[in-house]
Amino acid sequence: MGDCRVTFLPHDITVSVPSGESLLRAALEAGVHINASCGGEGVCGKCRVLVETGAVDKGLSERLSQEDIDKGYRLACLTKICEDVSVRIPVETAVDKSVMRLQVTPRRTATIQHPDFESLKEEGHFIPPVEKVYLELPPPDSQNNMPDVTRLIEYLKLEANEHKLELTLPVIRKLAKVLRENDFKLTLTLVRPVRDDGKTLILNIQGGDVTAENYAVALDIGTTTVYGQLIDLSTGKCLAEAGDFNDQISYGEDVITRLIYAEKPGGLEKLQEVVVDTINGILKRVFAKSEVDRENISTITLSGNTTMTQLLLSIDPSNIRRAPYVPTATLYPPFAAALIGIDINDHVIALVYPQVSSFVGGDIVAGVMGSGMYMHEELTLFLDIGTNAELVIGNRDWLACTACSAGPAFEGGGIEFGMRAAKGAIEDFSLDPVTFEPMIFTIGDVRPKGICGSGLITMTAVMFEMGIINNSGTFNRELGTPRIRKKNDVWEYVIAWKDETQIDRDIALTEPDIENLIRAKGAIYSGCMTLLEEVGLTLDMVEHIILAGGFGSYIDLEKAMTIGLLPEIDPDCVTFIGNGSLMGARMSSLTNRIRKDVFKVTQKMTNFELSETPSYMDNYIAAMFLPHTEIEKFPRLNERMKVRKKQNKVSIAD
Amino acid sequence: MGDCRVTFLPHDITVSVPSGESLLRAALEAGVHINASCGGEGVCGKCRVLVETGAVDKGLSERLSQEDIDKGYRLACLTKICEDVSVRIPVETAVDKSVMRLQVTPRRTATIQHPDFESLKEEGHFIPPVEKVYLELPPPDSQNNMPDVTRLIEYLKLEANEHKLELTLPVIRKLAKVLRENDFKLTLTLVRPVRDDGKTLILNIQGGDVTAENYAVALDIGTTTVYGQLIDLSTGKCLAEAGDFNDQISYGEDVITRLIYAEKPGGLEKLQEVVVDTINGILKRVFAKSEVDRENISTITLSGNTTMTQLLLSIDPSNIRRAPYVPTATLYPPFAAALIGIDINDHVIALVYPQVSSFVGGDIVAGVMGSGMYMHEELTLFLDIGTNAELVIGNRDWLACTACSAGPAFEGGGIEFGMRAAKGAIEDFSLDPVTFEPMIFTIGDVRPKGICGSGLITMTAVMFEMGIINNSGTFNRELGTPRIRKKNDVWEYVIAWKDETQIDRDIALTEPDIENLIRAKGAIYSGCMTLLEEVGLTLDMVEHIILAGGFGSYIDLEKAMTIGLLPEIDPDCVTFIGNGSLMGARMSSLTNRIRKDVFKVTQKMTNFELSETPSYMDNYIAAMFLPHTEIEKFPRLNERMKVRKKQNKVSIAD
Repeated sequence: MGDCRVTFLPHDITVSVPSGESLLRAALEAGVHINASCGGEGVCGKCRVLVETGAVDKGLSERLSQEDIDKGYRLACLTKICEDVSVRIPVETAVDKSVMRLQVTPRRTATIQHPDFESLKEEGHFIPPVEKVYLELPPPDSQNNMPDVTRLIEYLKLEANEHKLELTLPVIRKLAKVLRENDFKLTLTLVRPVRDDGKTLILNIQGGDVTAENYAVALDIGTTTVYGQLIDLSTGKCLAEAGDFNDQISYGEDVITRLIYAEKPGGLEKLQEVVVDTINGILKRVFAKSEVDRENISTITLSGNTTMTQLLLSIDPSNIRRAPYVPTATLYPPFAAALIGIDINDHVIALVYPQVSSFVGGDIVAGVMGSGMYMHEELTLFLDIGTNAELVIGNRDWLACTACSAGPAFEGGGIEFGMRAAKGAIEDFSLDPVTFEPMIFTIGDVRPKGICGSGLITMTAVMFEMGIINNSGTFNRELGTPRIRKKNDVWEYVIAWKDETQIDRDIALTEPDIENLIRAKGAIYSGCMTLLEEVGLTLDMVEHIILAGGFGSYIDLEKAMTIGLLPEIDPDCVTFIGNGSLMGARMSSLTNRIRKDVFKVTQKMTNFELSETPSYMDNYIAAMFLPHTEIEKFPRLNERMKVRKKQNKVSIAD
Repeated sequence: MGDCRVTFLPHDITVSVPSGESLLRAALEAGVHINASCGGEGVCGKCRVLVETGAVDKGLSERLSQEDIDKGYRLACLTKICEDVSVRIPVETAVDKSVMRLQVTPRRTATIQHPDFESLKEEGHFIPPVEKVYLELPPPDSQNNMPDVTRLIEYLKLEANEHKLELTLPVIRKLAKVLRENDFKLTLTLVRPVRDDGKTLILNIQGGDVTAENYAVALDIGTTTVYGQLIDLSTGKCLAEAGDFNDQISYGEDVITRLIYAEKPGGLEKLQEVVVDTINGILKRVFAKSEVDRENISTITLSGNTTMTQLLLSIDPSNIRRAPYVPTATLYPPFAAALIGIDINDHVIALVYPQVSSFVGGDIVAGVMGSGMYMHEELTLFLDIGTNAELVIGNRDWLACTACSAGPAFEGGGIEFGMRAAKGAIEDFSLDPVTFEPMIFTIGDVRPKGICGSGLITMTAVMFEMGIINNSGTFNRELGTPRIRKKNDVWEYVIAWKDETQIDRDIALTEPDIENLIRAKGAIYSGCMTLLEEVGLTLDMVEHIILAGGFGSYIDLEKAMTIGLLPEIDPDCVTFIGNGSLMGARMSSLTNRIRKDVFKVTQKMTNFELSETPSYMDNYIAAMFLPHTEIEKFPRLNERMKVRKKQNKVSIAD
């Protein structure tokens, strides 16, 4: 699957896309508009393009006449690119090149940041908190009949330079038998101390040399979903992974309803039990996918937000939702995972990510640790966007964090046709700057069912930049397109007509939808502003943005900056780490440095309760525009808007 | 109960005894012989004495004529002393004062050594390993909403100067509720670290101030019996105690049969279960006797021999009885007592005495620690005599130890009429040096049923010193008393005739009995000699003897030296600590110094396997005489024997 160059004419814009990509998506990448309303099923027939040079695959449809096909016309949504091609977009209306330039910025998602094992190895930090060591002991005789435990410890000192050791009763119970059944050859599982002067715990013993078989399970306990990975501690590789909805969903969709349920008699016990059921289901699947013996699991590293963590550990979370929002604990001791019901061998030790506060939890700390943010000099904004958005700003010297309630808009909540990022969700969007006809992309390339968060952001950004909505999110009522209409006293833009959808209704974006989005993005942006103001800095000083959470993978960065969700920085300086919580859990299974550093990092993470920070409300009100009251904070957008205004005048003058 | 002075005539020997003591026991103390064979029931009527001055109580019997009673005759075994008295012993045969002096040494038991809390307090060591601390925290508000755990730790640092703290999940689980239900006032139970730079564990939390209620349970897990004490950690006082047979007895009387049973399928589990049942029964009794709430128990300190400890902790002990006699472990980590089935609150931590080797166990280490032997300069012999005798010799600078199989003679095993020290056992004994008639004392002052260990030692010593047996334990066949006779080809001395006993048979001491005793005492004495020789010292350098175990409380020290069981030292230098294991367990609940010191002490305790020490067999053979091949090792006895020989000649010359 090499890259192919696709040139769009008459725009004369060329992009590189992987071979096999559809022409429609290539156009989106290029920022070239092609009308398309059916989500890529080839039924609307609007995305007719002429392939001038180069070979393509598919793209034929009964929507095209034989004559058109013979000429080289294809439906862009169905056409797969096989080599370098040149494609002409039939321009239905008279537009010149200057108008073409009015099109919005090309699609640009964040660079994906993978766990960096190589630099870990180079820096000598590829030392898992739980290691295996092989030892051959001399058997006892009458001259040397020291106790088995003493023999073990003495030889660990001599042969492996291991000192300050401690061990548990279960290990002592197994020792005599393991030694005698294996000719006094054994593999020890050692838990490294957090402090250099701490003790090393002998967690498990096995006969013979099984040092090569050392595995961990990394778990992200999310409010909605739980993910698990089986990690090979020798290579850092993920051998198997699985995810599932958190069974707690049956007892409440979000954190607050779970907290309320936990206060009912037996509620905490029930929630603990069901999330453990979810975890055990995931373990079953990852073990089924791999050849790994559970006896060779050394550790379970896990992270979750404060509520998820307290529920999993049977710690009453009732004070989390009550002012002054006090969590019971933010640091947890290591414990035997089996003790809380996890279906794993008794020796396996659970290491839980610490929290910062009731609303900045271990999932965020895991992201900060796993991404390495806490080690770098550059001023970084870490952003995990969901119903609650958590923000961390800082660098290796200082860190400030907060959580703000963004509301459910980014997950499709409170949006007329909003939906989660699932099959049929409109996730990307473009507009013809003249006809205002849309080009839509759905997850799964099927007919649209609704709009997900990333679609919502892009639509709003595109419409704002094209002047279809103003900076308050109000539709321009004078554009003369039937797509902008008033229905039930609410203005809206129809994205897909009834017969192009799966739901047999027009799918539209309404002004209240845009208001909700503005509130959501305003909460996050003003949260970032407030944090920085509290430390005497401003958002334009941010050098790196790390996006975490499922949401961040789809988001079009320029569009997010256009609506003022993200501060405007070079998109190259934005990275996406995916599930930061899972990444952090995985990284912490591979390097004990995280355990050594995390306590200091969480202490360094100054937590702000926005409701207690007076400047927050002012910042919030100022952020209730697209992109913001002060557009000067977004210089690139400001420049584009100026050009567009000038061009519009030219265009109209034409 | 003041002391009364009792003067025996014509001997003119005066002793002080507590008011209420019987005249017969006072005579024993004085070393004055009175014929007495019925064990103090007044039925034999032989112990007729004339009270010349002073008031006595009771002592009347139909065995005395009214005339005798009017004269002042009483039966010594029934007569209670009320004030200073003067008593004449009717001398049936013509004996002069010189013969009277041939009587053996007065009875002398070891000084009882009690736990020394006062010097602990003076030295600042009355710091239990588990302490309680009371704290009043400021409640959270919006300016100070740190997590509950952080609040706790911060205020412990500030208010109680407590640093390096760690805590467990169960404590974290309780914390929020305890704080909020008690106005943020709480009592913490803290486990002190062993090393000064170690961490303090927060073991439990309770609402309000309950620092005054801090208790421990001390347990001695013996092969035969289990004892428990409930200790007030504020005062050191024992609030209640209870003991019971170790239920494991049903699965084997001694260590070896238990070890064999433990190897059967399910055997280890069964033995673990039943000893825990025994412990739980004892706990039930000590709690029933006191007002103590189990929630206020902080720790269980326990000690037992190596096999008992491994069985209790479910550690397979099968290598203990097989050469080269390797125990699995000698050091155990602290653990939650409830985890092994002990019926106590979950937080209660068990601290187990470490062992030295397969046959020198935690019970001995507990005795060495509890008695303070390991801290003193004087050369001390610590001796715990049972079926197995454990010996420790040394001082604060060095310690050597071993175990030897004494055989069951001291517990009545292998002795024709041997029995345990129970009601009806002959425990003390004297002889008329002319008539060879006995004076016997039984446990419970009832008619005799048999002979226990201390009785056996005294009889052998008395008979040896009076020349009734020679230094090989052979009876003098020429004394002309019907008590010395040959029955079934075995020579014996009849201690009690059939009609004076409870068993309707003559109770006798036989030559094979004496041989068994010589083997037992020889094993112990030669063990001591061998240990000392290995470090270049001799037994006459011993400055202090500590006797531990139930046996040591009854033992007549001079008699034990006469038979060569103990080296001959000033009886004032012999102390008896009773159940050293229990004493050590109790002391270790009161001072964390023992936990700090015990690891070094056990490392210092050089263990000798006598079977691997070539000189042992020579020493053993040399010890197979009364008191020893070299009587010069026993100078006081040697002197008495010389006098006796001379007097015997005089007496015969009369």
